[in-house]
Amino acid sequence: MVRIGIVGGGQLAKMMAQEARKLGFEVAVLDPQEKCPACGLADYKITASFMDGDKIRELAEISDVLTYDIEHVNVKVLKELEEEGYPVYPSPRILEVIQDKLVQMEVMRKARIPVPKFVRADREELKEKAREFGFPLVQKTRKGGYDGKGVMVIKTEEELDKLLPADSMLQEFVNIEKEIAVMVARDQYGNVEVYPVVEMVFNEANILDFLVVPARIPEDKAEEAQEIAMRVVKALDGVGIFGIEMFLDKDGRILLNEIAPRPHNSGHYTIEACMTSQFEQHVRAITGLPLGSSELLVPAVMFNLLGEGYGKPKVVGLKEALSYPGVYVHVYGKPVVRPLRKMGHVTVVNKDLEKALEIAHKVKGIIKVVGNGS
Amino acid sequence: MVRIGIVGGGQLAKMMAQEARKLGFEVAVLDPQEKCPACGLADYKITASFMDGDKIRELAEISDVLTYDIEHVNVKVLKELEEEGYPVYPSPRILEVIQDKLVQMEVMRKARIPVPKFVRADREELKEKAREFGFPLVQKTRKGGYDGKGVMVIKTEEELDKLLPADSMLQEFVNIEKEIAVMVARDQYGNVEVYPVVEMVFNEANILDFLVVPARIPEDKAEEAQEIAMRVVKALDGVGIFGIEMFLDKDGRILLNEIAPRPHNSGHYTIEACMTSQFEQHVRAITGLPLGSSELLVPAVMFNLLGEGYGKPKVVGLKEALSYPGVYVHVYGKPVVRPLRKMGHVTVVNKDLEKALEIAHKVKGIIKVVGNGS
Repeated sequence: MVRIGIVGGGQLAKMMAQEARKLGFEVAVLDPQEKCPACGLADYKITASFMDGDKIRELAEISDVLTYDIEHVNVKVLKELEEEGYPVYPSPRILEVIQDKLVQMEVMRKARIPVPKFVRADREELKEKAREFGFPLVQKTRKGGYDGKGVMVIKTEEELDKLLPADSMLQEFVNIEKEIAVMVARDQYGNVEVYPVVEMVFNEANILDFLVVPARIPEDKAEEAQEIAMRVVKALDGVGIFGIEMFLDKDGRILLNEIAPRPHNSGHYTIEACMTSQFEQHVRAITGLPLGSSELLVPAVMFNLLGEGYGKPKVVGLKEALSYPGVYVHVYGKPVVRPLRKMGHVTVVNKDLEKALEIAHKVKGIIKVVGNGS
Repeated sequence: MVRIGIVGGGQLAKMMAQEARKLGFEVAVLDPQEKCPACGLADYKITASFMDGDKIRELAEISDVLTYDIEHVNVKVLKELEEEGYPVYPSPRILEVIQDKLVQMEVMRKARIPVPKFVRADREELKEKAREFGFPLVQKTRKGGYDGKGVMVIKTEEELDKLLPADSMLQEFVNIEKEIAVMVARDQYGNVEVYPVVEMVFNEANILDFLVVPARIPEDKAEEAQEIAMRVVKALDGVGIFGIEMFLDKDGRILLNEIAPRPHNSGHYTIEACMTSQFEQHVRAITGLPLGSSELLVPAVMFNLLGEGYGKPKVVGLKEALSYPGVYVHVYGKPVVRPLRKMGHVTVVNKDLEKALEIAHKVKGIIKVVGNGS
């Protein structure tokens, strides 16, 4: 019996744990929350901060292999464990690269992955570097950014005072045609499975509205994006599942945006729409098993269920939502709602992608996760 | 938050619980085993016998709806609960009908479902009734039969001493061309979703070898079988998922064999191969949600992982098994192995059914669940 230790017990860990248990593995979870989404599926639970090195070592002791469902964990201890010969997947080396957006881009540029033009800009020289770089530009703080945080668009010299006071990189402002993402799984023997290209559709407030697969882009561009995504994961010597976010710009260039060394929101559709889900691939890869097929069986549209209000969660409209064909609802079981918190997701599958989109639009207006205010 | 109480914590309850949690429901399980397959997924666990009425009432008190994953439970208490207005699905009335094979067939014959010819034969009049009925015949004891137990084939008058000493029914010996099964889901509003016909392939020892879907039978026979299966569930006024086992005989007749008022072994393929799994359908039906589509997305072959030896289970050959495309392994997490105990199952999907069968044959020779002898 193999036991998988997961640092982090959120929805990604929950869905990993479900696949792990299906394959007969046990699961141990470390999470600061007493009642985390994955907790109810874990054979063992350690309640501790993701930064608590001693507790991460305790998790390693009761497990046979470690993985994680978030990037902001104690990398130092994971690296020590790896150096001691303990299996940690994906390698904490990769976490170290990814936790610093500048380093991430430098490593990728060195590996000849197409990336937006960028320069390093330390905190004390931000304005000077920005003027040199030219406008419009995008500032990204090197650390701590997540879901759009730590990012600032500076359109003209007049906006220089908006710069965030932190060590950063300055990136060219990409004229985005579409934001796309590709999931890539890679096993311990170097074999790779690449998923189809996903298209991210944003609303006016720049919040991810829908995820559409296959992406409505030319076939040669889709192949190019898959090729780049695989090269990214190979360049990192990654083992596990990776989410590779990219831009397709108005000139037809595909440029790397960001790497997630874990199951990713843009891969949730794989549960219903693909032969093997991103979570099963991850479990297979980190336990030394061969990968499954990433083949898409049916087009899909996914949207997140973002929290509304505060308090204990209540799912509204579930019954009506499920009355549409091909609608799959995932509620993560988070104990409390906060506005815009990811409380679940919905996948709509249909042989006709336009039909799936139509149903997804309708269902999105129906199903909500709201707080009871207490 | 709705909490589903399940009497029984075996593999069927485990897979139900996974779907229930996905939809945001909580789960409470009653099972005599301390470490049952569903236990690790349950929010609440009651350790007690399936016959313990007080404990079943306790389960009802902490739950919002009751269901079960086996038939041999305390029906009396479930009926009392239902009479008090507590929701129990499928209705314990149905359990009562099904627990007695004679009553099951009588009810079905009355509903004009095609059944093999049969007569009642009480324990003290077995031989006499058998002679009257004629040979060959099949004796089925009215109660307690399971997985082929309680069944005796009497080919000639000379074999009369083989009759099992129990109240029974005597059934015509059907010249079986194929054994088939159909899963049917029915919601609280009378809507029905019917799954494709599954073909059961037995080995020389008459143990189920493979389950093949879609069944290799003429299309009009498949439609007839689906029609009969739906009529069975309607006749019972069933709510939930039902497995309807039937015979296709050498004269082309389709005859009812047995009814399972719960998720069924012959519906496991739905997890990977259908739009909505039998487990999700069951959870939807019993919680008052609408059903999902039962559409088959890809042909499938399923086989059970039967235990070998005794002791703690060890999965052998997992890595090699998963190296074949479209192979999905489910290990139930039962704490100990016994010979022929269902320890898990494997589903092989492939757009080409013959290819799926070929892979299933190979993989069946590779993957085993063996006891460590301790």
